[in-house]
Amino acid sequence: MTSEDIHKQLDFLVTIDALKSVYRASPLIDGSRKENSAEHSWHLAMYALVLGSSTRLDIDLGRVIKMLLLHDIVEIDAGDVPIHLTTGPSDQAERERKAANRLFGLLPSQQGEELKSIWLEFEAAQTQDAKFAKSLDRLQPLMQNVNTGGGTWIEGKVSEQQVYERYGPTIQNGGGNLWSIAKTFVRRHFQSDSIRPESSGVETK
Amino acid sequence: MTSEDIHKQLDFLVTIDALKSVYRASPLIDGSRKENSAEHSWHLAMYALVLGSSTRLDIDLGRVIKMLLLHDIVEIDAGDVPIHLTTGPSDQAERERKAANRLFGLLPSQQGEELKSIWLEFEAAQTQDAKFAKSLDRLQPLMQNVNTGGGTWIEGKVSEQQVYERYGPTIQNGGGNLWSIAKTFVRRHFQSDSIRPESSGVETK
Repeated sequence: MTSEDIHKQLDFLVTIDALKSVYRASPLIDGSRKENSAEHSWHLAMYALVLGSSTRLDIDLGRVIKMLLLHDIVEIDAGDVPIHLTTGPSDQAERERKAANRLFGLLPSQQGEELKSIWLEFEAAQTQDAKFAKSLDRLQPLMQNVNTGGGTWIEGKVSEQQVYERYGPTIQNGGGNLWSIAKTFVRRHFQSDSIRPESSGVETK
Repeated sequence: MTSEDIHKQLDFLVTIDALKSVYRASPLIDGSRKENSAEHSWHLAMYALVLGSSTRLDIDLGRVIKMLLLHDIVEIDAGDVPIHLTTGPSDQAERERKAANRLFGLLPSQQGEELKSIWLEFEAAQTQDAKFAKSLDRLQPLMQNVNTGGGTWIEGKVSEQQVYERYGPTIQNGGGNLWSIAKTFVRRHFQSDSIRPESSGVETK
């Protein structure tokens, strides 16, 4: 690494500090505030580290962790689109592409291209590493919700059936038992007394 | 992994959400608030990912990243001790040891022991992986300070000489050029017009 390269790398590392100020729809489990995308990315990397051997997919765990660390960086420019927002900005994909070019473009060119390609792989969700990473990115907000009395499901008036539809396929693609376990948490949540249909509009069964 | 193991792992992952509510002395670069230890850990993992090839040490980068992801988890129980606090709690090491036993003890036993040993290795700062990880843990708050007009140095009335003494040796142990580059940022900061000795007590040269 030349000194010029290291200056570029430090400039990138200073710039991505802004991810700590991108707020998501999900709550912290202590209910004190919404989660930001930087701490969410840390949490997902810990999910991968801890749950890495739960999948039957042939993953490179170190690569999955890198993928999760950088998967949301484009949100610095393009913002976060919550899962239960039925209509996001129509140009979101284009905004994220431009963000990736600007942000990864701050790095020495070879490294920038390498990290951008890992981000593109995550977005495409076709490789085994990307499928496992995506499954954790869906599981973690589910866990935040079931541990805070509903979280974004209450705010978004999301039904039990919609939870199965919006979380199930992606978590199942992770190639393990995580969905069958997560489903029991979801069912317990929607059957609990804390759900009040008159205030939340959530269907209970 | 048995279903019982996965339940333990998810319990651990829910518990460590609390790291997002442990606040450090360092500011965000946008100056809006203090940094928390979860997003700090994400940032450090990105420092390792990006700067991994800048060191002459023989490191296992994936292991360094794991180490940085979990290095502050004990703060959930034991709290953060800022670098410029001259007298921390006298029983801090004991508090952290108990925290490690409780938190890593939530995991299936073999995994819990493995992660606790990585944390102990970081604390001991003897291996090449730990030395590089420690150097980044010292570099990142320095970068937060020089990019926010002084940060904790202003608040703590820390002199230029004290910065060299408190940051230099650990960053130099990282085995690369990062300290020689960081030093130029420190010098520029203490020479800049924005430093007002009458209000901050910081020595300027």
